[in-house]
Amino acid sequence: METSTVPRTESARSKRSAIVAAAVDRFGSDGYEHTKWAAIADDVGIGQTALYHYFESKAHCLLTIMRLELTQSLARFQEVTGSIEDPAEALAQAVRSAYEASARDALQRRILQNHLDLLSTERPSEKEEQERLRSRALVRDIEKAWTDLIRRGVESGAFADRDVELSARMALALVVGVWRWYRPGGPHSLEEIGVLTSDAVLRVVT
Amino acid sequence: METSTVPRTESARSKRSAIVAAAVDRFGSDGYEHTKWAAIADDVGIGQTALYHYFESKAHCLLTIMRLELTQSLARFQEVTGSIEDPAEALAQAVRSAYEASARDALQRRILQNHLDLLSTERPSEKEEQERLRSRALVRDIEKAWTDLIRRGVESGAFADRDVELSARMALALVVGVWRWYRPGGPHSLEEIGVLTSDAVLRVVT
Repeated sequence: METSTVPRTESARSKRSAIVAAAVDRFGSDGYEHTKWAAIADDVGIGQTALYHYFESKAHCLLTIMRLELTQSLARFQEVTGSIEDPAEALAQAVRSAYEASARDALQRRILQNHLDLLSTERPSEKEEQERLRSRALVRDIEKAWTDLIRRGVESGAFADRDVELSARMALALVVGVWRWYRPGGPHSLEEIGVLTSDAVLRVVT
Repeated sequence: METSTVPRTESARSKRSAIVAAAVDRFGSDGYEHTKWAAIADDVGIGQTALYHYFESKAHCLLTIMRLELTQSLARFQEVTGSIEDPAEALAQAVRSAYEASARDALQRRILQNHLDLLSTERPSEKEEQERLRSRALVRDIEKAWTDLIRRGVESGAFADRDVELSARMALALVVGVWRWYRPGGPHSLEEIGVLTSDAVLRVVT
């Protein structure tokens, strides 16, 4: 039993990743509303019945993509800031790391920003609602992580003594606002944007 | 002819305003996706056929609300900044004026932010597409107006010499980011948020 289960699970996992990747590409380029759920099955080379085995609806897939992006965003923040003592340097690196993104990562981040309002109202299905609640909890965790870092900076005297929650929201607004207008091949590279945005965030908190 | 046309036009205009107000309340509190188009007809006290006389679809109404908000946003910016010589003072007042908002204005601004991705892909109907294209043009005009003011500040030496388009986008990200989390009755009044955000925007550009 064990031996036959392992490869099956691995293959299921890789198919799920392929569906998520295809959905990110479609939602990102054609728009979520314009994307036909069946087109994603075609992209991955599976039937619609198989697709429903992984995601029960287009919205379920979108909410899963959002939850994955939020999970990665929190993990990235913790990994980058965990090892840096100086709050200003930690904040600068956290901002820069938000732009270390492949073209697909950039699409995924834009999709998250464009559909955040989905998180504010209850979903009709249990699976969608589960992803929504996980995503909401992650949004709170991310806001708390940025707030805690800024509080550490205020307490050490590195940052100005202002409302730390509001400062964290301003920092996050600067960081995520980029995904609204950024398109690959524009006048600024993501690396440049990371440097300029981290400088701006530091000016906001100091 | 003339005498009979005038009141009819006025009444049509006021009904249209009533529909827009009801839609802002519904989209803002229940969410756009969850709002039944028929519920808006009920709120206004008209039949669905009469409703379709004003808006051919829920999306047409949403796009009209977005275009109205963008029109007001640009007009507000021009009115506030037009009479102030000093670029820093003009920018500060432009930011503050963005938060002079009734509860319904706040909902309307949140609705705009939550659905900006609608503007990036073509609409199926002519009336929707018309509102989308007008909205896109307004977004560009708003970005240009903020960019021009920041450029004036850089040229006069009041602001630091950085990429003015990027600075304008950062300023706008700080201003509109608030509508994502602001709810009436929270810890900060809109007036306080206006003061704190205008200070932050000035730190970003100087």
